[in-house]
Amino acid sequence: MKSVGVAILGFGVVGSGTYKILRDHREFYRRTQNIDVTVESVLEINRQKALDLGVEESRISDNIAEVISNPNVDIVVEVIGGVEPARSFVLAALHSGKTVVTSNKELFCKHWHELEAAARRTNAGLYFEASCVGGVPIIRTLIDGLQANVVTSLTGIINGTTNYILTRMTREGSDYRSVLKDAQALGYAEANPAADVEGYDAAYKLSILASLAFHTKVPLETVYREGITEVSGQDIAYGDELGYVMKLLAIGKNDGGKSIEVRVHPAFVRKDHPLAAVSDSFNAVYLQGDSVGDVMLYGRGAGALPTGSAIVSDVIYAATHSDVKYATFKNEEKAESGVKFVTNFRSRYYIRFTAKDRAGVLAKVAGIFAKYNISIAELIQKGEDAENLPIILITHETNEFSVRSAVEKIGALENVVSVDSVIRVEG
Amino acid sequence: MKSVGVAILGFGVVGSGTYKILRDHREFYRRTQNIDVTVESVLEINRQKALDLGVEESRISDNIAEVISNPNVDIVVEVIGGVEPARSFVLAALHSGKTVVTSNKELFCKHWHELEAAARRTNAGLYFEASCVGGVPIIRTLIDGLQANVVTSLTGIINGTTNYILTRMTREGSDYRSVLKDAQALGYAEANPAADVEGYDAAYKLSILASLAFHTKVPLETVYREGITEVSGQDIAYGDELGYVMKLLAIGKNDGGKSIEVRVHPAFVRKDHPLAAVSDSFNAVYLQGDSVGDVMLYGRGAGALPTGSAIVSDVIYAATHSDVKYATFKNEEKAESGVKFVTNFRSRYYIRFTAKDRAGVLAKVAGIFAKYNISIAELIQKGEDAENLPIILITHETNEFSVRSAVEKIGALENVVSVDSVIRVEG
Repeated sequence: MKSVGVAILGFGVVGSGTYKILRDHREFYRRTQNIDVTVESVLEINRQKALDLGVEESRISDNIAEVISNPNVDIVVEVIGGVEPARSFVLAALHSGKTVVTSNKELFCKHWHELEAAARRTNAGLYFEASCVGGVPIIRTLIDGLQANVVTSLTGIINGTTNYILTRMTREGSDYRSVLKDAQALGYAEANPAADVEGYDAAYKLSILASLAFHTKVPLETVYREGITEVSGQDIAYGDELGYVMKLLAIGKNDGGKSIEVRVHPAFVRKDHPLAAVSDSFNAVYLQGDSVGDVMLYGRGAGALPTGSAIVSDVIYAATHSDVKYATFKNEEKAESGVKFVTNFRSRYYIRFTAKDRAGVLAKVAGIFAKYNISIAELIQKGEDAENLPIILITHETNEFSVRSAVEKIGALENVVSVDSVIRVEG
Repeated sequence: MKSVGVAILGFGVVGSGTYKILRDHREFYRRTQNIDVTVESVLEINRQKALDLGVEESRISDNIAEVISNPNVDIVVEVIGGVEPARSFVLAALHSGKTVVTSNKELFCKHWHELEAAARRTNAGLYFEASCVGGVPIIRTLIDGLQANVVTSLTGIINGTTNYILTRMTREGSDYRSVLKDAQALGYAEANPAADVEGYDAAYKLSILASLAFHTKVPLETVYREGITEVSGQDIAYGDELGYVMKLLAIGKNDGGKSIEVRVHPAFVRKDHPLAAVSDSFNAVYLQGDSVGDVMLYGRGAGALPTGSAIVSDVIYAATHSDVKYATFKNEEKAESGVKFVTNFRSRYYIRFTAKDRAGVLAKVAGIFAKYNISIAELIQKGEDAENLPIILITHETNEFSVRSAVEKIGALENVVSVDSVIRVEG
């Protein structure tokens, strides 16, 4: 039986979850995988955290060089998060030929090219299943399960915090601020929630997933990004009446690998779409492949044990496969030349504005839409306040820039009080 | 670049789908996988079928020995279906050291042990992703994606034909026989539909999936099986009122690998369960792992291209991984001794019977349930026909044998006209 020594860098939520899984499944992996996995070293300044879970004192270190030079360590698990010092530690491990398993989406999204170059030099393994969508094996699926397909689109709910907040806003009719506070108190949102609620976390993951799915580098800066901080309970309620659910979607589209579209923003999803039922902190990725058709993977996007499941899956995979696979594209810092990133993307739109109930105002609005070649699928007037009449319309598919221009013109009309929301309608 | 020669045995729906995918993606696989995959040989008596799709005449053969002895053939794809001659052909390929990729669930379910033994002797690869749930990479996920987990349960909608029939019965209020006829005319059901509608196909797949998920042999004969031929539109309608959808479920449960439960039967699923939204010919598998929690994979369970996607995925996997993995358990014809297969399983139950509206009949029914320790969650009388009063009740969780005994006793009561349906309520 093969012995596999693991070092865990960082003993926070995910690090300790990973440790528990490895500790509690040692016999199981001996029996089912024919490997004996032991945690040989833990890098953690707060020794007590590790001692409390039963790590032997001699295996706890605060010195990265000591951890990496330990000859019993074959695989280094990085679960520190953030760019530094995680980047330096991972590079050091790769330089010494150790296989690295990481859950660090920010590091991976920003420095994948550098890490992969280092790994290639020593033929070290580099695994990152846990960086995207927690326990859902979406990366393995893209690499080893759907690789026969040209993936044409990918639509994900890939941030648990925002999905939890939106689900509660929808269920309770509460507003963003009060639900966020509650989510923070319950540990579903961080004290500084920006990475989640502003869509950065989803954008990191989309950059990684789209690169894998489309076989070309999709750098973070090509991802269009809007968070959920401006989402109003009013729109969620109107959407519900119209048959839609609000989700923070990460969308990637691929036209033959030459024209790529990547965006993260709130969107309405039809209630009968499989993504509409993805609630609370659950995540899902909905893919379309040219042969397989529609595929969806659903599960827990975060948490100590789900993310630990992905990390340990990578550890076992690395220990039981002798071939190392790297990216299937030229993995540089920038996108390959020749790849066009679409910013004027196509979508349907929900637009809400408030108008004074005067003769001719709707005709003018309709005229503006006509001018930009936007055709209206539905128009609903809400309430009866003649000075503040909410009007909602849903367009047929059109393009982003036309909508932006039309909305600006509508906002400038004499009897339009305000343009309140523009929400894309997808799926 | 590595050259990979493929032989396709059988050029029916899946065989020709596989051929098309390989033909149309040759450049794509050269670019993304660094392999050059060509179809070197097609075994098919009806040569015209292969000629029509552009297979060169010299590559079409009706002689298995010729195909297997072709030195350009590295991987043999078996898509004939059924046990013989598929079994002999696959064994011959494995004996000569060729890697085999198959979509043949019946063969695999019944002869996996024999095929694996043959493969081990020559260290040949043996892949079967396409045998279960079409394009959904459930087998790769069990082997390489969720292998860190003890999988405790698996609930699947894994037969497209029956899901299509049940979906249409639900939507249209039609009866089984008329929808089946229509499904046959549309090609969703075969002329002899028994394998699908009697649950055999689902049972084959459940045997394979449960063996992988639970790391122990789950032979076909341990799978409890009921088909959908007795499902009544009346029960689907009553279920709808109560918040349930009817599905043919394949259920596997695992208590520490020592106590296994495997069953295929129609069941009611709560409308808000992710499996309830799996409609038409879509399939899904819902898994629970001890670390990852709930995971669902959803997609097309059949069809030329989805199944072809799984086959080509196996071909690429075999060509790009040098390690061969076999079953993680003792792969014999029979189950390992010491594993207990539960037949008196636990579930909730929907029971419909017809009674005469006489004083005391419900008291007697209630008394019988009490005697068998079955507690009733809900009881509904339907209609007002005093001589034929439909009564529906839903139990709390109880066990199968108690329900069978209670139902027999109720059927024998003086004022009970008939016990019409007993449907398990899951999820």
